[in-house]
Amino acid sequence: MADQKKMVEEITSMEVDFAKWYTDVVKKAELVDYSSVRGCMIVRPYGCAVWENIQKLLDARFKETGHENVMMPLFIPESLLQKEKDHVEGFAPEVAWVTYGGAEELTERLCVRPTSETLFCEHYAHIIKSYRDLPKLYNQWCSVVRWEKTTRPFLRTMEFWWQEGHTMHETAQEAIAETERMLNIYADICEHELAIPVIKGKKTDKEKFAGAESTYTIEAMMHDGKALQSGTSHYFGDGFARAFDITFQGRDNKPQYPHQTSWGMSTRIIGAIIMTHGDDNGLVLPPAIAPIQLIIVPVAQHKEGVLEKARELADRLGKVCRVQLDDSDNSPGWKFAQYEMKGVPLRLEIGPKDIEKNQCVLVRRDNREKYFVPLDQLEEQIPQLLEAVRAGLYEKALKNRENRTYTAKTFEEVLHLAQTTSGFIKTMWCGDLACEMKMKEEAGLTSRCMPLEQEKIGDVCPCCGKPATTSIIWGRAY
Amino acid sequence: MADQKKMVEEITSMEVDFAKWYTDVVKKAELVDYSSVRGCMIVRPYGCAVWENIQKLLDARFKETGHENVMMPLFIPESLLQKEKDHVEGFAPEVAWVTYGGAEELTERLCVRPTSETLFCEHYAHIIKSYRDLPKLYNQWCSVVRWEKTTRPFLRTMEFWWQEGHTMHETAQEAIAETERMLNIYADICEHELAIPVIKGKKTDKEKFAGAESTYTIEAMMHDGKALQSGTSHYFGDGFARAFDITFQGRDNKPQYPHQTSWGMSTRIIGAIIMTHGDDNGLVLPPAIAPIQLIIVPVAQHKEGVLEKARELADRLGKVCRVQLDDSDNSPGWKFAQYEMKGVPLRLEIGPKDIEKNQCVLVRRDNREKYFVPLDQLEEQIPQLLEAVRAGLYEKALKNRENRTYTAKTFEEVLHLAQTTSGFIKTMWCGDLACEMKMKEEAGLTSRCMPLEQEKIGDVCPCCGKPATTSIIWGRAY
Repeated sequence: MADQKKMVEEITSMEVDFAKWYTDVVKKAELVDYSSVRGCMIVRPYGCAVWENIQKLLDARFKETGHENVMMPLFIPESLLQKEKDHVEGFAPEVAWVTYGGAEELTERLCVRPTSETLFCEHYAHIIKSYRDLPKLYNQWCSVVRWEKTTRPFLRTMEFWWQEGHTMHETAQEAIAETERMLNIYADICEHELAIPVIKGKKTDKEKFAGAESTYTIEAMMHDGKALQSGTSHYFGDGFARAFDITFQGRDNKPQYPHQTSWGMSTRIIGAIIMTHGDDNGLVLPPAIAPIQLIIVPVAQHKEGVLEKARELADRLGKVCRVQLDDSDNSPGWKFAQYEMKGVPLRLEIGPKDIEKNQCVLVRRDNREKYFVPLDQLEEQIPQLLEAVRAGLYEKALKNRENRTYTAKTFEEVLHLAQTTSGFIKTMWCGDLACEMKMKEEAGLTSRCMPLEQEKIGDVCPCCGKPATTSIIWGRAY
Repeated sequence: MADQKKMVEEITSMEVDFAKWYTDVVKKAELVDYSSVRGCMIVRPYGCAVWENIQKLLDARFKETGHENVMMPLFIPESLLQKEKDHVEGFAPEVAWVTYGGAEELTERLCVRPTSETLFCEHYAHIIKSYRDLPKLYNQWCSVVRWEKTTRPFLRTMEFWWQEGHTMHETAQEAIAETERMLNIYADICEHELAIPVIKGKKTDKEKFAGAESTYTIEAMMHDGKALQSGTSHYFGDGFARAFDITFQGRDNKPQYPHQTSWGMSTRIIGAIIMTHGDDNGLVLPPAIAPIQLIIVPVAQHKEGVLEKARELADRLGKVCRVQLDDSDNSPGWKFAQYEMKGVPLRLEIGPKDIEKNQCVLVRRDNREKYFVPLDQLEEQIPQLLEAVRAGLYEKALKNRENRTYTAKTFEEVLHLAQTTSGFIKTMWCGDLACEMKMKEEAGLTSRCMPLEQEKIGDVCPCCGKPATTSIIWGRAY
């Protein structure tokens, strides 16, 4: 137990310093390492395995809904980036510029893609001729670069990994339906697979994506009450299509502009998983994406028959979950602490006494509840316990969000809440940028979203007293 | 049939102009599109699906052999690239340089990775402390950039996609064994999955990877007799470890340098598939990586019961292969040509007369052989026919290689063969760079590899007449 204590002590408590706790966890759980490239992270095998599991879930849902993967160039010529005015204004200040190829200075600078709307539009202009070519439902898995000043692993890095869907449709209605469909897929995966409750909503004009007509978002609340935007889905109308001269022959034989969407989820979601479910013992992973769902720790493994039985169980249980056996010569206490740090949802302990009784001990990571389970019931019990971990994580996160969500009718109430709490503040809003700026400058809050499920909190905007047009959620955000 | 003829005519015949045939195929089979970024290709859904299937085969073999995936930064600081002398000399002339982040000029240039040895070494220096930490068996899936002057889709592009494995070992023997293990995995996948016969061998010092002690390669012969290097595996000794100061505490408690390998296979292999198996009707895909293995084409589909039966078969056969039904209103002739162009290994035709007889027609893509198959035997016959296609493709490619492989004992014979044939020329070699240069300058040939399976063709080097130390294969290469 000395070993276990030693490891646990190395992490800062989340209540003492949440930011320090976060960086401790990403390092100790071996999710990332820092590199000498400023602001760029190395995603280590364990972090990469988490991302691969998230990718599989998303990619399967994309393919089920008719989307196809493509691979676009990494570079965007400056002239191409400039074709859509709002887009270039939003992104040009934060891109990396390639100016030399070998020893030769380029005649036109290339930026490393911060997002690929422009590249997709150029390609779509080549391949969309008729309404019969629509919809085009493409997605790309890649990394993108944004020249951020301050960075933190997963949450904000110069390079991050993501998928970016880019679709073209015959009508505005179809494009809007696609925007909603993909937002719903993101929300569904967050809630049902990652056990992260999210609020679906629309961004304000100030917070929407550069070049979009409207941006939809799913907002999650972290353990400390701050918000994390976890996935976005944009509707572009035909703005890019006009800028890139993409037309198709419509059913009426006349040229028309197609309607466009894009949508993305990134490695930021791993930051959300850490900060939603983690605790002072380290990471807690939702079973759906845990690289190891069940760790088998033999107890008194030098005793006859223990390792054999542990190996037999590892073989058997590989059929119902992702299982790993740790038969290293580290102590059981060290192993317990190690796999708690790594957030493995279930631990199976088996020693000589258990074998005598033909049972073993299962321990849940989320609440440390112990279960004595007959060996012949494991195939049945383990999937049930994994589901119980998922449900437990979701309930805990939802309760945290409910406890930290407040309603305010006046600006004084907003100010008081902003100064005394950390969480979501729901108000009404008139829709004016001036009031949104006042919230930011005087209360330190940014708008998270106008929820799709609207509430009537009052009649007027708390900032200006004018009639309200929407309910809105404010918070501090990662 | 008019439709079919029209499409087929659009491709240049491979015997008339092989290079033009190649670009016609990659475009018409919808594998790639060109972008406005010089030398960078867009991999379209069909090409991307081929690459994803290749990735799955490779990734499974890597994981079976204990390798783990990681994600490294896209950028390499100039000082890091310069740490290993031979390596920087090899790559610096062909990298893209980032010099600005937003509006700010960087104090140190960053290159876009052409390969990631330097980044892996920096990370390994952080995480390797003891012999207990070894081996480290990492792999990365990503794209890399090399500033090429002339480019062709898949064969040579500024940006290409690949996997790069980077491993560290306690001893030289273990590292050499890894180099061989990975070469064997590449060869195995080429021969058994992609139906491409390859020759395993060692590169000459002139042709080896920048910074490597030795480079192993698999060399394939294309339809036109030219060679394509299809995968490489490098042994580095401890050169990088010394340059990057990576040491571990050995079993003797003394600090030691680990021994290193790297190995890669890229989207070039898609070029190899096209040029090994393709014909004047377009692409021919080996079944293991074909996005569609069986295309169902209904004949007289407006007649009662035809589409219903075709859909029923598509549902049923999805269990034994990757199947697609084309129920569009294009003519059967157009569909036949379209899916031949796309290289689909098997076609199933079903019309009213077939349904009456409770049978259908299966047509192999590789040799157009037709089979009348009772509907209740399809689950049995289709996997057998897919295997027959694979075997047929392999045999044909092997025969081409055998027909185009020559042996020469004198330089006059070499010159004559180089002027009158296109293929592999096997000779003995003394090992001197001067003779290798003579082959290049006077005969236009480069060394492909010194085969692991050595042959005794004679006693002396045909260039200089000195005693030979090895047999070697020469050719012209993509």
